[in-house]
Amino acid sequence: MATAMQHAAGSNAAAADDVEMVEASELRRRNRPRGDGGAVAAAEEEDEAPSVERAFADQRVPSWREQLTVRAFVASFFLATMFSVIVMKLNLTVGIIPSLNVSAGLLSFFFVRIWTAAMEKVGLLRQPFTRQENTVIQTCVVAAYGISFSGGFGNYLLAMSDRIASQADEANNPQNIKNPHLGWIIGFLLLVSFIGLFGLVPLRKIMIIDYKLTYPSGTATAYLINGFHTPHGAKIAVKQVKKLGLFFVLSFFWGFFQWFYTATDTCGFNQFPSLGLQAFQNRFYFDFSPTYVGVGMICPHIVNVSVLLGGILSWGIMWPLIAKKRGIWFAANLADTSLHGMQGYRVFIAIALILGDGLYNFLKMLILTAWSLRSQHKKSSASTLPISDDEPSNGTAAISYDEERRNELFLKDQIPWYIAYGGYAAVAAVSIGTVPQIFPQLKWYQILVAYIVAPILAFCNAYGTGLTDWSLVTTYGKLAIFAFGAWTGASHGGVLAGLAACGVMMSIVSTAADLMQDFKTGYLTLASPRSMFISQVIGTAMGCVIAPCVFWLFYKAFDNIGISGSEYPAPNAAIFRSMAILGVDGFSSLPKNCLTLCYIFFVGAIVVNLIRDLVPKKVSNFIPIPMAMAIPFYIGSYFAIDMFIGTVILFVWQKLDRAKSETFAPAVASGLICGDGLWVLPQSVLALAKVKPPICMKFLSRGVNDKVDAFITTLS
Amino acid sequence: MATAMQHAAGSNAAAADDVEMVEASELRRRNRPRGDGGAVAAAEEEDEAPSVERAFADQRVPSWREQLTVRAFVASFFLATMFSVIVMKLNLTVGIIPSLNVSAGLLSFFFVRIWTAAMEKVGLLRQPFTRQENTVIQTCVVAAYGISFSGGFGNYLLAMSDRIASQADEANNPQNIKNPHLGWIIGFLLLVSFIGLFGLVPLRKIMIIDYKLTYPSGTATAYLINGFHTPHGAKIAVKQVKKLGLFFVLSFFWGFFQWFYTATDTCGFNQFPSLGLQAFQNRFYFDFSPTYVGVGMICPHIVNVSVLLGGILSWGIMWPLIAKKRGIWFAANLADTSLHGMQGYRVFIAIALILGDGLYNFLKMLILTAWSLRSQHKKSSASTLPISDDEPSNGTAAISYDEERRNELFLKDQIPWYIAYGGYAAVAAVSIGTVPQIFPQLKWYQILVAYIVAPILAFCNAYGTGLTDWSLVTTYGKLAIFAFGAWTGASHGGVLAGLAACGVMMSIVSTAADLMQDFKTGYLTLASPRSMFISQVIGTAMGCVIAPCVFWLFYKAFDNIGISGSEYPAPNAAIFRSMAILGVDGFSSLPKNCLTLCYIFFVGAIVVNLIRDLVPKKVSNFIPIPMAMAIPFYIGSYFAIDMFIGTVILFVWQKLDRAKSETFAPAVASGLICGDGLWVLPQSVLALAKVKPPICMKFLSRGVNDKVDAFITTLS
Repeated sequence: MATAMQHAAGSNAAAADDVEMVEASELRRRNRPRGDGGAVAAAEEEDEAPSVERAFADQRVPSWREQLTVRAFVASFFLATMFSVIVMKLNLTVGIIPSLNVSAGLLSFFFVRIWTAAMEKVGLLRQPFTRQENTVIQTCVVAAYGISFSGGFGNYLLAMSDRIASQADEANNPQNIKNPHLGWIIGFLLLVSFIGLFGLVPLRKIMIIDYKLTYPSGTATAYLINGFHTPHGAKIAVKQVKKLGLFFVLSFFWGFFQWFYTATDTCGFNQFPSLGLQAFQNRFYFDFSPTYVGVGMICPHIVNVSVLLGGILSWGIMWPLIAKKRGIWFAANLADTSLHGMQGYRVFIAIALILGDGLYNFLKMLILTAWSLRSQHKKSSASTLPISDDEPSNGTAAISYDEERRNELFLKDQIPWYIAYGGYAAVAAVSIGTVPQIFPQLKWYQILVAYIVAPILAFCNAYGTGLTDWSLVTTYGKLAIFAFGAWTGASHGGVLAGLAACGVMMSIVSTAADLMQDFKTGYLTLASPRSMFISQVIGTAMGCVIAPCVFWLFYKAFDNIGISGSEYPAPNAAIFRSMAILGVDGFSSLPKNCLTLCYIFFVGAIVVNLIRDLVPKKVSNFIPIPMAMAIPFYIGSYFAIDMFIGTVILFVWQKLDRAKSETFAPAVASGLICGDGLWVLPQSVLALAKVKPPICMKFLSRGVNDKVDAFITTLS
Repeated sequence: MATAMQHAAGSNAAAADDVEMVEASELRRRNRPRGDGGAVAAAEEEDEAPSVERAFADQRVPSWREQLTVRAFVASFFLATMFSVIVMKLNLTVGIIPSLNVSAGLLSFFFVRIWTAAMEKVGLLRQPFTRQENTVIQTCVVAAYGISFSGGFGNYLLAMSDRIASQADEANNPQNIKNPHLGWIIGFLLLVSFIGLFGLVPLRKIMIIDYKLTYPSGTATAYLINGFHTPHGAKIAVKQVKKLGLFFVLSFFWGFFQWFYTATDTCGFNQFPSLGLQAFQNRFYFDFSPTYVGVGMICPHIVNVSVLLGGILSWGIMWPLIAKKRGIWFAANLADTSLHGMQGYRVFIAIALILGDGLYNFLKMLILTAWSLRSQHKKSSASTLPISDDEPSNGTAAISYDEERRNELFLKDQIPWYIAYGGYAAVAAVSIGTVPQIFPQLKWYQILVAYIVAPILAFCNAYGTGLTDWSLVTTYGKLAIFAFGAWTGASHGGVLAGLAACGVMMSIVSTAADLMQDFKTGYLTLASPRSMFISQVIGTAMGCVIAPCVFWLFYKAFDNIGISGSEYPAPNAAIFRSMAILGVDGFSSLPKNCLTLCYIFFVGAIVVNLIRDLVPKKVSNFIPIPMAMAIPFYIGSYFAIDMFIGTVILFVWQKLDRAKSETFAPAVASGLICGDGLWVLPQSVLALAKVKPPICMKFLSRGVNDKVDAFITTLS
């Protein structure tokens, strides 16, 4: 318990909350910038003593209407599109999504600064750029690109398609298949994405002011934004933006250069056997992807090491050993991609690890929330005490200047209760009527039940995120898969119903936690809750259109989305569908000994987590995280090598110049990720225009090469 | 005339004297470090006003015996070996040899500093590290690795082999072929390399003290060494060494990494069609060679641009046009490597450019020397006036403290005349007796004539180098090819006789200029002429053994040395042999219209040079140098792309931070060159041990790739 509470506190949360970054679409963490804020995050509430708000005392706080500017939403739209492309690429390649909030924060600051500077020059600047406006942009962008993740394009939604379905024998029938199409995706997202916003907005005062929940990411973002708008902070921000820009350009052109040598899937730098051909065949190689080097620089060292260890354990040891049992444990004539053969071990052992880890953390969070609410309740009968151990226990004693001012502004602009409840009721009613139109397998009463349970789960997740910074979105989604899948039953399309219910649940739970996180940011930057809420709504609406369009671009441009072993394996799609099948059909389809291995890994994940929580933090920092280890089980270790290189670069940099690395490493990493991510846009345009790369960079063993050389001479 | 004199002055010499760096084995410049000395070189004599020697006044100058330490020669041996490998690689690949003196200076300082620091720690340091000792190492290393160049392994010596001979129909007979062998090469070099030292040593007082010749490179080296031994200079030197070390390691491991993907000659990074397949077929591509990127960073911008322009003019425009005349201008069935076909145009037009440029500069130098000597003579009848315009014309007026002290020490340790003349006579006598044993085509009286003429030419070259920093070694060598080839005649092995005479002449002329350059350095660092001379003799002896051994390693390890289009084309070998054939046989063998084109380019080279000398320096800085343009004519533009990238990197760096780029760019470049160069050692050991790289990185067009993919599936 004490350990868990420690995790909740600022920088201590790093190890824990980044698991979920690693865990791809499983658990997702948001809003935790580490740019300027590496130290800031650690400092957090404790360092508030030297008042932040006194520095801003002579600046008038703009009204909530003034905070919502046109330029803010124009900037948000462009940034949201860019980040959607990046998140989509991450979804569809490996499924590990790092925090892009530093980039979002830096770039929004950069864009609007340029805009205001230009306007000022031509004398048209009507309104200076304030930190409240910056918060509005940040909120809008995060809400919009958040849909690219919670929309499930890398997991539940793609899992419904025939491409993923055809990889298993079970549930490969029209009843359990719904291919993605732009129209119904946008409709579905618009139906389910707003419910979380309306559901939790009335609780903001309780959670932010009364419970004083920490929301480490939201707090850190606020510090970043506050920092930008003091003169010194602005200077550092400009330097960070320059670094980001340099690596953005390098990374973009590297992507461009690579393209020319990728005539087919088996060509190019991402097929480079940089550790030798033998290692390459076991998917150990550096694939020259700046994205995952950047991701490795953002994730904590232990996450990267865990991923690599997972890769070595699975592709280095276990899979080669199991492959030797071909013909004994499973039929010798099965393809490597069959779920009854090798692929079965890969997928289901990964699922066992993910579920074990997820279950442990879900239970931990539930107990933590219950415990915390109880003590909260006890205390609040006497006074409004702070909840976190880390905050100064000043009880009802003098409220600081900062707090007073923040409370004042946070309570000024109210959101009428009838908008919240009315909105919830209206959206729920429309959803109940129309979602079954999209998914006939899901009945209206099932949706009704979902919308009755949802606010409770959304509260749980928002509260848990407030404590630990750890949003368990995909865990709630998996619960829904099993619950609604079993309810519907195998004969009525239970697989598809489970996946659809997963989508409903993920959207609600995810937006609720995001909303509260953003309210915390707004609270600390004196942004009006009303403008924050409107920004969140507009951002969500943007996301519901942008994300499906971006996905559609990928889906049309690259014909290997979801294909195992290709450039876009979208690993979580197969994992989610396998879970749904498991939930409906049981363990019947697993190859021999697979279930035993699954049990071992399931229990192992729980035990390792327990050990991590029980031993002192010094030791637990060196214990790998089971969920992080699970990712390479399915797709191989190539991205683990990338991430490990990123972590080594960061480690060396930290040793050489800790201060500089903390200021600039997130900017460099963001540049690498964003540049490579944005190259996807022209790349997919080229693919849609049927422009194919002219050259194949091929890697052959010396023996094969001699034969090929002889063959080529016969060609000319 | 005035322009020419300007060129002689310090940094102004950069444009002119680096031509000869580019012109590979044609003209070679030495001793011009640009590290710390970029500004130093410019400062030169003018800045002497704030006395250098007063800073060192309290330091006792060690006796000449003390200057010659064992550690100095141990360090020299290792450095000489390393630089010999590097120079040999440069000789055999492209033939462009940049000044490695910064590296030599930095590394010798670094080695001995470590040695003395270690000795001091264990309490065994008997003698501190002085600048005189540093000068001794520098001299010894340069003398030793100089043999790798003047030994002609990339030109006259390799040109005698059957590999080069078989590329032409003419003179491809036993009479005109002598294959390299370790034994006779060492013998030949020992016979011819010392004569230059003995020949000019008596003239040192006249040239250094009386004529006060500038020797910009020698002067700059002295400033570098003086700088190192002041506290501030030592600090910068350590920083430079660190940069050098970093890029050394990077470059070395890059070479190692590349190796794995080079299963055959057509594989690997040096076959990377980085500008597309079409460009690759015309030899336009970036071959990922750190060496030539480093070379590009050391050479002046105009040299790099000239090389690239030459590449575009030849491989981009002329060769494709001439190739269209296949069947009209030359027989359609001729291979691309035949001197009667395409290769003929490539080689002879390059020769025309080189000869035109060489002739112009030779005549210029002759006139300059004559003019300068005459005015010297006039003045000296009145007093010993300084010769250079740039020196303060203090006439017989008060000699500065620095000058007084330098003169005093330079005249202290004499080298007896009987050693000099006796040595010359003895070595000449032995040579006359034994060189005809090695090359029966060369008669004893021809050697005698050579040894009578040689001291005059050696004086010319040493004097010219003193004025312009421009040592015309290979020009004298080419003179010898034509003169002795014609004298011997076609029927008596004139081609081989010419090449052998070229070797004799190059050795004498090169060592003479080096000697005087080093005396200037010693003069300015108060090193004793006697220790300098001994160091030079020991260095030369080392070089006569090290250089042939290194060459032999290459020759045995790589079986494509001298083969056009391979990794080691050794372009100058083919060019030198073609010249020898031209000298003996005349123009009969040239393909149609080739002679016309040769005339055009010969005259063009002279005209461009004339324009360069006549227009103001501002304009001439933008006029390409014909000799630099000639190199890619024969081997293609890939190294020109490398060098251009190096020049772009340097240019951007200079724009960003001029001071830093001037201090560190030469160190970075040296690191790149040395690291890649040293990788050759393990690479050739692997080749000798028949360890072959396991993987082929291949580049195929999409069409061919599809066919190859289909073929590969049939293999398994």
